[in-house]
This record gives sequence, structure tokens and C-alpha cells, in this order.
Amino acid sequence: MEEHRIRIGVAGYGNVGRGVIAAIGKNPDTVLVAVFTRRPARVEKELAEMGMADIPVYNTDVPESWPGRDFIDVVILCGGSKNDIPEQAPLFARFYPTVSSFDTHKKISGHVDKLDDIGRKCGTTAVVSVGWDPGILSLMKMLAEAFLPGSSTATTWGPGVSQGHSDAARTVSGVLDARSYTVPLENAEQLIEEAFREGRVLSSKELHKRVVYIVAAEGADREDICAKIRSMPDYFLGYETEIYFISQEEMDSRHRSYPHNGMVLTCGQTGDSDQVKIRYQLNLQSNPGFTGSVLVACARAAFRLWDSGEYGAYTILNIPPALYSPYDEKEVMRFLL
Amino acid sequence: MEEHRIRIGVAGYGNVGRGVIAAIGKNPDTVLVAVFTRRPARVEKELAEMGMADIPVYNTDVPESWPGRDFIDVVILCGGSKNDIPEQAPLFARFYPTVSSFDTHKKISGHVDKLDDIGRKCGTTAVVSVGWDPGILSLMKMLAEAFLPGSSTATTWGPGVSQGHSDAARTVSGVLDARSYTVPLENAEQLIEEAFREGRVLSSKELHKRVVYIVAAEGADREDICAKIRSMPDYFLGYETEIYFISQEEMDSRHRSYPHNGMVLTCGQTGDSDQVKIRYQLNLQSNPGFTGSVLVACARAAFRLWDSGEYGAYTILNIPPALYSPYDEKEVMRFLL
Repeated sequence: MEEHRIRIGVAGYGNVGRGVIAAIGKNPDTVLVAVFTRRPARVEKELAEMGMADIPVYNTDVPESWPGRDFIDVVILCGGSKNDIPEQAPLFARFYPTVSSFDTHKKISGHVDKLDDIGRKCGTTAVVSVGWDPGILSLMKMLAEAFLPGSSTATTWGPGVSQGHSDAARTVSGVLDARSYTVPLENAEQLIEEAFREGRVLSSKELHKRVVYIVAAEGADREDICAKIRSMPDYFLGYETEIYFISQEEMDSRHRSYPHNGMVLTCGQTGDSDQVKIRYQLNLQSNPGFTGSVLVACARAAFRLWDSGEYGAYTILNIPPALYSPYDEKEVMRFLL
Repeated sequence: MEEHRIRIGVAGYGNVGRGVIAAIGKNPDTVLVAVFTRRPARVEKELAEMGMADIPVYNTDVPESWPGRDFIDVVILCGGSKNDIPEQAPLFARFYPTVSSFDTHKKISGHVDKLDDIGRKCGTTAVVSVGWDPGILSLMKMLAEAFLPGSSTATTWGPGVSQGHSDAARTVSGVLDARSYTVPLENAEQLIEEAFREGRVLSSKELHKRVVYIVAAEGADREDICAKIRSMPDYFLGYETEIYFISQEEMDSRHRSYPHNGMVLTCGQTGDSDQVKIRYQLNLQSNPGFTGSVLVACARAAFRLWDSGEYGAYTILNIPPALYSPYDEKEVMRFLL
């Protein structure tokens, strides 16, 4: 273990932010030194209730009030990918090394380029789009393809909550509350292996179904709700969709947690006919909890890169893996033994 | 894909060397340009039979006959870890970037230090102890521990042939031929999860059994053979060991291939009580075939490191993962999307 404790600031006090704070408590070489939020008064109160009244809280929207780089080693951006991170990341990157789980897939490349420019100009390091997907699963896909050329890789997600699909179902008239789960088909693994043998690539729709729990308004037309949900393009249309009506009490008691799973399955062969199967599988009772845990390991990497003068943007694909480990360069060799 | 084809020399024409040559054929950005062996005449004949008469063959023991670095980008060392690699690696590293799957666990650290010195002095890069174990599984163990502090990781191997145990069984009097498989216990995963909950760490003996196939000499005392095998310290003593007597014909027809499997299972939690399970699993019909395939991806990384002036020794723990991929820096971003 190294001497210097990495001083972490957390920007955004939602589920992922709380996950990061919990993970800092499990990494003795890190320490929480600041929280940035748009709602300072509320967050100060919440932190005090959690026994963290001594953690200074800063307003995300008032950069002139932020502490200097001397007081913070890395800021972990825990806001949403839709609005928060695109806006906050370029600003924070001017002042501090940063880490984010930015996951708007189509915009990742542009985001990396932008933070790379800022980092090189301002002498900061940004570790971008880390978490488990994008992040660990991206790394697994890349490694599997490199180690097994000609192979075919498929990813399944779930059972796990999809916030976007839950929100979409909630827009249907007569729906009071909704929770949508992404669920891999029971025979997904078999389908992937068959598709590989037949040289086909499967779409997400061929590997997953959606399971939606609905609290309906009294007297609402349930058949109509089902029909409307099933026909929503970009969300449920084309997916096998199961819909269950439940009470608000059941929704509150049985659907409050955020479990998730992810699997990357690679099928390929070596030589003329020797089959290879590589499977990476994550089972998470708390999606934001694990994401927070990964982000803290990435903050360690961001700090070490910055500390060696490696400025600009990095992803999980180009960071030397030992930088995530709490062990130093020599100690980490134990994993080879 | 990049323009320059990486020119690979293979040192050692055994099972792994053949695996490397097959893998070069599946990686369009690599090309086989030399084979180094102690038995040049025999290997020349074998290569000719495989349609590779044009590949120059060099004597491993006559370095003054080897071609210059201008003709070879990387040499992959495919000899045994007991005698070949410790002797050959320091010699080859004076002339060329190298890759090896050196796996004598206790000596890896010293081996890395030695090659690091030579590489820095001679302007070469050595990628050391890669393959799947040590190698990919080492990386998985390190990542799991970094991303999930406080977790517990166990590894299972097999069903797969153990050459060392087969050789050991063959030394028993009355044994004409023997093949020993390492086999994980059927409930290994459950045992690992239970041990994690109870804060215990399991030994290899608690997770594996050995299954030995024996061809006995006519009239040999089978009970005596079983007793002797079961009591061999460092090999079978303490392991659940099943022994089956078979004919030489059955041995030759059913036990000639080299399948293997490996699993790294990590149990941990985030927050106060949210369970996490991370599983990495390899199923290989040909152990040397897959090892060869990994070594070729590592040759790509060795060449790129060397080409950027990064001399010295590297392991899978400190190589930026994108260097294994045939894609260039920009293209590889697709795995994040």
C-alpha cells in the first residue's frame, strides 16, 4: 500500500455518488474530501445525517468557489450522462484530474477527444467512460477478440432495471408507476453458440425480453395499457414483453433495489477445429454500488497517470491495468505467481 | 488494420510452437519469418510437410547464425519453462523483442527483473509470462480485487491434463502409460461462495480432484499401483484421486488431445450488504492452441511497445490492453460504443 491517500471529490449525490462514497470507505488509500452538488443545503443535511458533517460541500454551478487542485487529487463525476456529464466534465477537467462513467455510446468518441484536448492544455488527466458497461465489459470484448481472432462475441444484460424503459412505460396514460427489467432469454447462451456455428450475429432483441411491472390507476383499461406499451418503438416494439399489474405497495417493497447482471460470451476456435469459449459474467445486487466501486479504482489510476505527467483522456482500453490496483509496481506481481 | 505486418520468429517447435504458427495464420497483420530449434533438420522436414518449406530454420544453439533484428520483429519463445525459457530468454532478449509464457511461478519475479535489465541495455522489449495462466487469469484476479476491495477470489482449473502429474504417475513400477487430469469438484462454485460468507480461503485440494488413466503392464499389481500413486507427496497425496485402468488403444484414441478449462470466481459486496459475483471462465479444446493464440496477440503488443521505444520487461498487468488489438488507437474505441 502506498503512503499518500488519494483525495477524492464527488460531483453529484445520487445513487452512483452514494456508491462512490461507500466504496471510498472500502479503499484505505482513498479519502473523500469534497462533494459538489447543485443542491448544497440539502446535501449538507444528508451528509450530516450520514455522520459526514465534516465533508465540505461546493456548488457545482459556482466554479469560482471550488477548492484548488492542492486540496483535491481527483473528482469523480457521478451525474447523468444525458445532461450533467457533457456539461460538467469539460469544466471540471480544467481544474482537476477526473473520472466519469459517461455512457451515451454514440457520443463517447467526441467526448474523449474533447477531454483529451482540455487535459493536455490544462495539465489534467481524464479517465472516461468507465464503470462496467461501457468499461469492464468493453475491455472484455476487446481482449476476447484480440486473443481469439475470428471469434464472435455477444453481450447479455440483466435481469436488471432499465431506467429509460421504466420512464417510457410511465408516460402511458393510466400508468401510475412502472418498472421495466431487461431479462436475457433463458436459452441465450445456447442461441449465441448456435449463431456462432452458423456464422450469424444476433441482435439484442433476439437475446432479451422485457418484463414490466405496472401500477395502474383505478378503472384504467389494462388491455389498452398493455397494447400501448408493447407498441412503443425504440423501447418495447420487437421485444418479447411481459407485463404484470401490481399494487403500489408491492412496487415499493419488491422493486426498490437496483440489481443488474452482465455477460460477455465469446465463441471461437483455434487451429482447425478446437473450440474455445470465453465467458465473463457479473452478478450485481446493486448496479450503482458496483459502478461506484469501479469508479474509485479508476480514480486511483487517474491520480497515478496524472502524477506521472500523463495528461489527456484515457479509457479502460489504454490504461495499464496495474494502475487500478492498490498494490505498487513490485507488489502487484503477486497476481502472476 | 495497420500496414506493417509483424514479422514473427518462433523458438521451439512443440505443441505451443505449432499453436503459435496456427494463430499467425489467423492474424493478417502478422507473418511467420523464422523458426528456431535445436533440431533444425527434423523441423525443416516437418515444416516442408506442412507446406512451409520457405520458412528459414535456425539453430537455437548457434546465435552467430541468427538473422539480424532487421529481419525479425518479435521472437515468441515456445520452449519449456523448466529449462528452455530460463536459458533462451536472456539470450534472445539481447537481439530481439520477445514474448514468452514462462510459468514457473516462483521464479517469475526474478525472470522479469533479469529481462528488464537486458531489454534496457540492449534496446529490446520482453513481454513475459503471458498465456492464460499466468496471464489472462492473473489479470482477471488483479482487476477483480481492484474493482471490488474486500472480495475473495478463487481459481479452478480443469478438466485438463496435467503433464507433471502424468509424468509422476508414469514413474510407478508396473505403469506403462499414464494421463492425469485435474478436475474441479462438481460443487466447487458453491464451496467458494460458502467459504467467502464464512471468511475462509480454500486450498486447491479443497476444490479439485485428480482423475488418472493408467495402462498397466500385464500381471502388474493394480492395487499396489493405486496405493503408490495415491501416496505420492506433492502430487496426489491429499487430493481425492480416481484411478482407472485402460488399454493402450483407449489411451491413444481417447486421451491424445489437450483440452483445459480455467475459472476465476470472485465473491464480494458493495455497500453494506449488496452481493457481487464476478466470474471469468475459459473452456479450451486445445490448451496449446489457445496459449499460442494469446502469445501472438502479445507479440503485437511487444512490437508496438518496442516501436515506441518502451524497452525492458512487461507483463499483462502493465501493458495498455489496446496494444493487443489489431485495431489502431482510434478504431479500438468501437469496443466502448
